[in-house]
Amino acid sequence: MKIAEGDFQAWMVSMQARMEPVLARVLPAAHLSPARLHAAMRYAALEGGKRVRPLLAFAAGELSQAPAERLEPVAAAVELVHAYSLVHDDLPCMDDDVLRRGKPTVHVEYDEATALLVGDSLQTLAFQVLSESSVAAKAQTQLEMIRLLALAAGSRGMAGGQQIDLESTGRALTLPELELMHIHKTGALIRASILLGYLCGDVFSEGERERLDRFAKSIGLAFQVVDDVLDAEASTATLGKTAGKDSKQGKATYVAALGLAGAKARASELHSEARAALVPLGERARRLGELADFIVLRKF
Amino acid sequence: MKIAEGDFQAWMVSMQARMEPVLARVLPAAHLSPARLHAAMRYAALEGGKRVRPLLAFAAGELSQAPAERLEPVAAAVELVHAYSLVHDDLPCMDDDVLRRGKPTVHVEYDEATALLVGDSLQTLAFQVLSESSVAAKAQTQLEMIRLLALAAGSRGMAGGQQIDLESTGRALTLPELELMHIHKTGALIRASILLGYLCGDVFSEGERERLDRFAKSIGLAFQVVDDVLDAEASTATLGKTAGKDSKQGKATYVAALGLAGAKARASELHSEARAALVPLGERARRLGELADFIVLRKF
Repeated sequence: MKIAEGDFQAWMVSMQARMEPVLARVLPAAHLSPARLHAAMRYAALEGGKRVRPLLAFAAGELSQAPAERLEPVAAAVELVHAYSLVHDDLPCMDDDVLRRGKPTVHVEYDEATALLVGDSLQTLAFQVLSESSVAAKAQTQLEMIRLLALAAGSRGMAGGQQIDLESTGRALTLPELELMHIHKTGALIRASILLGYLCGDVFSEGERERLDRFAKSIGLAFQVVDDVLDAEASTATLGKTAGKDSKQGKATYVAALGLAGAKARASELHSEARAALVPLGERARRLGELADFIVLRKF
Repeated sequence: MKIAEGDFQAWMVSMQARMEPVLARVLPAAHLSPARLHAAMRYAALEGGKRVRPLLAFAAGELSQAPAERLEPVAAAVELVHAYSLVHDDLPCMDDDVLRRGKPTVHVEYDEATALLVGDSLQTLAFQVLSESSVAAKAQTQLEMIRLLALAAGSRGMAGGQQIDLESTGRALTLPELELMHIHKTGALIRASILLGYLCGDVFSEGERERLDRFAKSIGLAFQVVDDVLDAEASTATLGKTAGKDSKQGKATYVAALGLAGAKARASELHSEARAALVPLGERARRLGELADFIVLRKF
C-alpha cells in the first residue's frame, strides 16, 4: 500500500497550511497584555505538528456536508486542547522533555510558570472558540460538541490517561491495561475530533455516527501503537522530539508489551478494523480512509 | 455597620452547606478510574473555602428569578475554576505553597504531577458541567455563559492576571498596574460568577446587567484589596493558608502600594461603589449587598 495518493498528499498539505491562519486568528495577538503569555501560547500552538486532529475533523465533516466556516474553529479547538496537553506533558514534573516539534519545549524557551499558564490558557481558549463561533446548525448541537470535547479532555479522557500513564511508569502493563491507558490518553481526543467534525454538518444519522465512532476508536489506538513503534525505531531528528525516551523512562509501551513485530502487527490489525468500519460510508469517507493509512504508515 | 444580619449569616451557611453535595455530585466518584486523580480532585474542591463565587452566583440569580436547579451547576462551575486556579497557583513553580484551606496543598498531599492534572481536570469539568446541565432558558444563553466563563478564566482574564503577577514579583507596581493585575486575576472570575448567576434566570434587562457588572467590578477588586490587608494582618491559623507570604515573596500588594491604612480606605471606597450600584435594584439585590458587606468586612 502506498502511504498516500498524490491527491491526498496535496489535500493534507493544503489543510495543514490552512490551519495556520485559523490558529493565528483565534490565539490572542502577541502584543496583547500579558504579552509574554500570549507569545508563549503562540509559540506552543503555531508552526508545528502534523495537525492530525484538525485533519480528522475536516475529513469527518465531509460525511455530513459540514461547511468550512464551521469546521475551522472546531479544528482549532481540538488542536488547542492537543497543544495544551503537550505543553503540560513536557513539564519537569511530568515527562521533563526539552524538545518538541523540533523546538525547545515551552518551559525551556520561556519558564516553567509561564508554561503552566500557557497550557491552562490554551485549554480555556478551546472552549472559548467552541462557544463563541458558529460551529453547528443548532445551539443544542453546539452544546453537545462542547460536552464531548470536555469529556474527551478531562479526567475520564485525556488527562485521566495521563494519570494512568504516570502510575504505570516502571511496571509492566498487561495489553488490556495498556489499551485502556491509550484509549484515554490519545484515543479520546482523536475520537472527539472526528465526532465534532461530523457534528459541524447538517446531515447526520445515528448509524453513521456509531460507525464513525468505531473507526475513531480503532484509529485512535493505532495512532498510539505507531507512536510507540516510531519512538523505538526512529531518530530524534526525524521525530522532532526526543526518541527512545519511553523505554529509558520505563514507560509501558506497545513495543514493550508485544515486541516490535507484535506492535507492528497490532497497528496493522487496528488499521484494518478502522478501514472496515468506513466501507459502508462509501466515497464520502475517502479522506478518512486515507488519513487512517497516513496515521499507520507515517514515519514521523 | 454589622458584618451580617442574622438572616444573612443563616443564608450564607445554608448556601455553603448546599454546595457540598452539588460539588460532590459533579466531581467524578473517588472509586472511578483513575482513582488517585479523582480522589485528588475531590480533595481540592470539597470541604473548604468560603464559596464566595457560588454565593455571588446564587445572589445574582435572585435578580432574574433563576431557579435553583439552574444555579447549582453554574455555582459548581465557577467554584471548579476557582479550585483549579488554587491548585496550580500553589505549585512549586508558582507560589510554592504548602497550606491551603487549612490542609496541605494538593501537590504536598499527593504529588506535583497529580496536582497538575487535578487543576487541568477541574477546569475541564467546569466546562463539562456548564455544557451538560440545563442552566439557562435558552441554548443560546447557555453558550454565552460558557463563553463568559472562558473569557474570565483564560489568558485575558484569570490566567493572564496570574502571568502579570509572576512578572511583577520583586518590582513596585503603580496603583493602576496593580488594579489591572487584580481585575484579571481575581476580578474576572468574580464578575463571571455574578453574570452567570444572573443569566440563569428568565427575566433579564440590559440595564440591570450593566449595573450588575459595575457592582461586580467594584466588589471583585475590593475582594483582592481585603485579601492583601488580611495577608498583612492575620495569622496563618485564621487564614487557613500561609500568612504574610506576599510581602516575603516581594509581591505587589495594595498594602505595599498604599500602606495598611490606605488599602483599608481603598477597600471601603470600592465597597461604597459596589453598594451604590445596587441601589436602583432595590430589595431583590439584598443578598448581593450583604455579600459585598461580608467580602469587605470578613476576617479570613
